[in-house]
Amino acid sequence: MLGTHEVMSTDITLYWGSGSIPCWRAMICLEEKGLSGYDSKLISLEKKEQKSDEILKINPRGQVPAFKHGDVVVNESMAICLYLENIFKKQGTQLLPDDPSHQALVLQRFMETQNIMDKSKALFYYRLQTKQEDWDQECIVEKIKALAEELSLWEKYLSQSGDGFLITEDFTLADAALIPALAFLKRMKLPMKEGFPHLASYYERVKDRPSVQSGWPPHWKETPGYDYLKDV
Amino acid sequence: MLGTHEVMSTDITLYWGSGSIPCWRAMICLEEKGLSGYDSKLISLEKKEQKSDEILKINPRGQVPAFKHGDVVVNESMAICLYLENIFKKQGTQLLPDDPSHQALVLQRFMETQNIMDKSKALFYYRLQTKQEDWDQECIVEKIKALAEELSLWEKYLSQSGDGFLITEDFTLADAALIPALAFLKRMKLPMKEGFPHLASYYERVKDRPSVQSGWPPHWKETPGYDYLKDV
Repeated sequence: MLGTHEVMSTDITLYWGSGSIPCWRAMICLEEKGLSGYDSKLISLEKKEQKSDEILKINPRGQVPAFKHGDVVVNESMAICLYLENIFKKQGTQLLPDDPSHQALVLQRFMETQNIMDKSKALFYYRLQTKQEDWDQECIVEKIKALAEELSLWEKYLSQSGDGFLITEDFTLADAALIPALAFLKRMKLPMKEGFPHLASYYERVKDRPSVQSGWPPHWKETPGYDYLKDV
Repeated sequence: MLGTHEVMSTDITLYWGSGSIPCWRAMICLEEKGLSGYDSKLISLEKKEQKSDEILKINPRGQVPAFKHGDVVVNESMAICLYLENIFKKQGTQLLPDDPSHQALVLQRFMETQNIMDKSKALFYYRLQTKQEDWDQECIVEKIKALAEELSLWEKYLSQSGDGFLITEDFTLADAALIPALAFLKRMKLPMKEGFPHLASYYERVKDRPSVQSGWPPHWKETPGYDYLKDV
């Protein structure tokens, strides 16, 4: 017999776009909480379907993820992850440990991953949006330095955390937030193995986990990526 | 007799800087959880004391807030707020409601306040860091538009939430994150009353709450602020 919570997974809808890191985080948490039966609605970011009336009704920002659980709407990816863990506490993977010191570290790293995204996007978007002949080398060097310093911090965190996941032997919210960010860096050709060996080995250990694979951007499997981060 | 948790507040240290919105959020949560006896260490951001060895030992980023609870370290402000609510669940104000739909909305708005900060800082820093004679009016108009659209969203949220706090009649994590952001907008002379009357009336209702006052930036009480947002 299915428990109440498992039945409820049919009442969850997630709108998502291929390649969106925030969407991927939410998908990982859905899988980890044993909610794989949710209504998964892949939209085309290229066709700007996130601006459709169907999504604007749920998310007035016209962005994905757009998430519904019954009548409950949550759209910020970090809020979706926290909500799923709190509401489906007894189900699937426990993503937030009870132990206060572990819980503190999970929350800290979970929120801290935003820095990786901010700094890699600063470099990525600069190169994407500025014509190559207009690239300001000083500005690029500064952005590369900022990202490299950020990743060095994580390299240190991982050097202290053994051969398990980011915090303990168990997969947590912090891993759900970190692994898509690392996959983004790989997609942008960051030489991870050479510069950040602990990050590289963590990435290899975690990337094939079913929850991670469940959200892998479909178009990433078919196209080679870009070399915007190859010199970090 | 004091409960265990109340005694523990003496084991909490918060390093903070005057005018830091993230620090203020953490201070509000500390007060709301009945932990006002914490060791409050005001540092000078002007003298870059956040780069001191004392703080770097706790926060390798050299930033405040830097927070310790016994041996437990948490530095990301949103993580501090979540940690305090989880660990001191039964004490002080309940900052995350049990009801799933309220909890969802609190988590959503809590995370969503970051958009207000991102968009107001984009305009604020552009004007602060660019010589006035070099201001690109098109760029400024774009940033003003982005901030005004953001605030219009919040205006709509507040128009639906009655005369209490952001989500319900009770103060939550969402209020702890929103009120310092609004105080920042006021400090930068955003004409809130004229453009965003619901935000203005919410601000007036909440600003004198003791927890909010406890973190009010000391130097803001003595200096007039800047007019970087007066034309939004």
